Amino acid sequence: MEYCFGVDIGGTTVKMGLFGTDGSLQDKWEIVTRKENGGEAVLPDVAESLKKKMEEKAINSDQVAGIGIGVPAPVEEDGVVQNTANIGWGYKEVRREMEELTGMKVAVGNDANVAALGEMWLGAGKGHTNLIMVTLGTGVGGGIIVNGKPIVGAHGAGGEIGHICVNYEETDCCGCGKKGCLEQYASATGISRLAKQRLAKDERSSVLRKQNINAKAVFDALKAGDELAEEIVEEFGRYLGYAMANLAVIADPAVIVIGGGVSKAGEILLQYVEKNFKEKVFFANKDTQFVLATLGNDAGICGAAKLIL
Amino acid sequence: MEYCFGVDIGGTTVKMGLFGTDGSLQDKWEIVTRKENGGEAVLPDVAESLKKKMEEKAINSDQVAGIGIGVPAPVEEDGVVQNTANIGWGYKEVRREMEELTGMKVAVGNDANVAALGEMWLGAGKGHTNLIMVTLGTGVGGGIIVNGKPIVGAHGAGGEIGHICVNYEETDCCGCGKKGCLEQYASATGISRLAKQRLAKDERSSVLRKQNINAKAVFDALKAGDELAEEIVEEFGRYLGYAMANLAVIADPAVIVIGGGVSKAGEILLQYVEKNFKEKVFFANKDTQFVLATLGNDAGICGAAKLIL
Repeated sequence: MEYCFGVDIGGTTVKMGLFGTDGSLQDKWEIVTRKENGGEAVLPDVAESLKKKMEEKAINSDQVAGIGIGVPAPVEEDGVVQNTANIGWGYKEVRREMEELTGMKVAVGNDANVAALGEMWLGAGKGHTNLIMVTLGTGVGGGIIVNGKPIVGAHGAGGEIGHICVNYEETDCCGCGKKGCLEQYASATGISRLAKQRLAKDERSSVLRKQNINAKAVFDALKAGDELAEEIVEEFGRYLGYAMANLAVIADPAVIVIGGGVSKAGEILLQYVEKNFKEKVFFANKDTQFVLATLGNDAGICGAAKLIL
Repeated sequence: MEYCFGVDIGGTTVKMGLFGTDGSLQDKWEIVTRKENGGEAVLPDVAESLKKKMEEKAINSDQVAGIGIGVPAPVEEDGVVQNTANIGWGYKEVRREMEELTGMKVAVGNDANVAALGEMWLGAGKGHTNLIMVTLGTGVGGGIIVNGKPIVGAHGAGGEIGHICVNYEETDCCGCGKKGCLEQYASATGISRLAKQRLAKDERSSVLRKQNINAKAVFDALKAGDELAEEIVEEFGRYLGYAMANLAVIADPAVIVIGGGVSKAGEILLQYVEKNFKEKVFFANKDTQFVLATLGNDAGICGAAKLIL
């Protein structure tokens, strides 16, 4: 087999990639996610788009190892999702339906797990088979890869890193209904929240007082030497670093890959996380490396393609 | 193949079992672990003992699928251990050496991971492929099984449940050098410690004041309606239950199996852990069941045998 497809289904667009089975990205494109009527058009649209690409490139289905698909929901081992709110799906047998639509082999995974696979195969985790990927975006997502495979779990809900409880004293609620989830401190929203709290209870001057507070502003202020911003990032780094130390005891990763919008702050972010990680890490995990994700938005299509190989 | 062997190497004895590949335990026995001279006799002794058993039962090596071995140390994917203090081993290629000694296929795993596999195959976790086993003994050990396989990790140190940090305010040190490890609260030693602390800072009467404090005494006092004992077990249950809720978010197990000496307290122990677990669990993991281990000391030989199948 020469080729495989990676499909990353999101709430707004579906990203698709044609890969060589050697990991070379031959082409990528995207289509709109048509969510109306319970998202009934989404899989047929994808099948149609893949078919057109194969015609365009004169590729036969016997040259294609299969189609890997990432979806933004827990995915059970048999490629079934129970409820994918932001695509409109209820119960859906994604693998079976897609195999019927295309006649090709299909594998399905959760988008966060799939992104972690992508970074393992072609990105920052290349060469490793045990890694954790943490995606710091609006929320905190993650994927934990053990011996080359994501932790999927009994209900497809493995690796929900954002909902580790890191603070039993928290009084504010997380979106999930619990209190003290990592997501409340380490996401873009969480960093803004930490910043607002600190600015409210502290009188010191800060460049952050003169602007809209968001994660980027906090890291920019840190880089400009702002003292309060430094304390906010330290707090962020403590929550995330301590959580990663606890995760390392469980999964024993070779590398921890940090991605998502917040990670655009760059190496300085890693420093604050790693310093706190090292403070709490179990001796057997002290060699764990921290690296920034390198694939950006392509992690999903890359990991999806890897699902099938 | 009709048979396989499970070998559980401990610091005092080596337990061995002859299994049918269907999971039937046909025979079990043990030999002394000869630790002198860097434990050089241990593997030859095991090989000799297995050979004698095969002669006794008139079993040929072509009827044996292989030998699974559990050792009390982190085991890397290739069956290598770096340092097994309580057997006397330094760097040792356990799999290769045992294959040379016996001419049979060998698989090696960490004893805690192997016990978890045993409970999955033939014990309290039967029928499940995603489970966590927590062993509450002198320390807290554990194994996390994902899709039928233990989390081994990059350094063979996956699933070290006892060293999750559950209390960042702790001032006493764990044996590992960190502070606030689960083992400091949920092991037999940890429960004694919680009891002594509570008795020292509280004036109320308790049957525990009249005897040696150990985990069994605490659970016996609880069953007899002792108020202080109830508070001690509640504290134990909170640390363990909260830790299991965080683990469930990561591994998404169908069941959590509680074993080890402390678990002899029985169902009442599960109640205190489960109540606290439910308070903190992520919605996707709320169906996770708690069960008591059923294999006792045989978990090791059972899981070791399963390693090879």
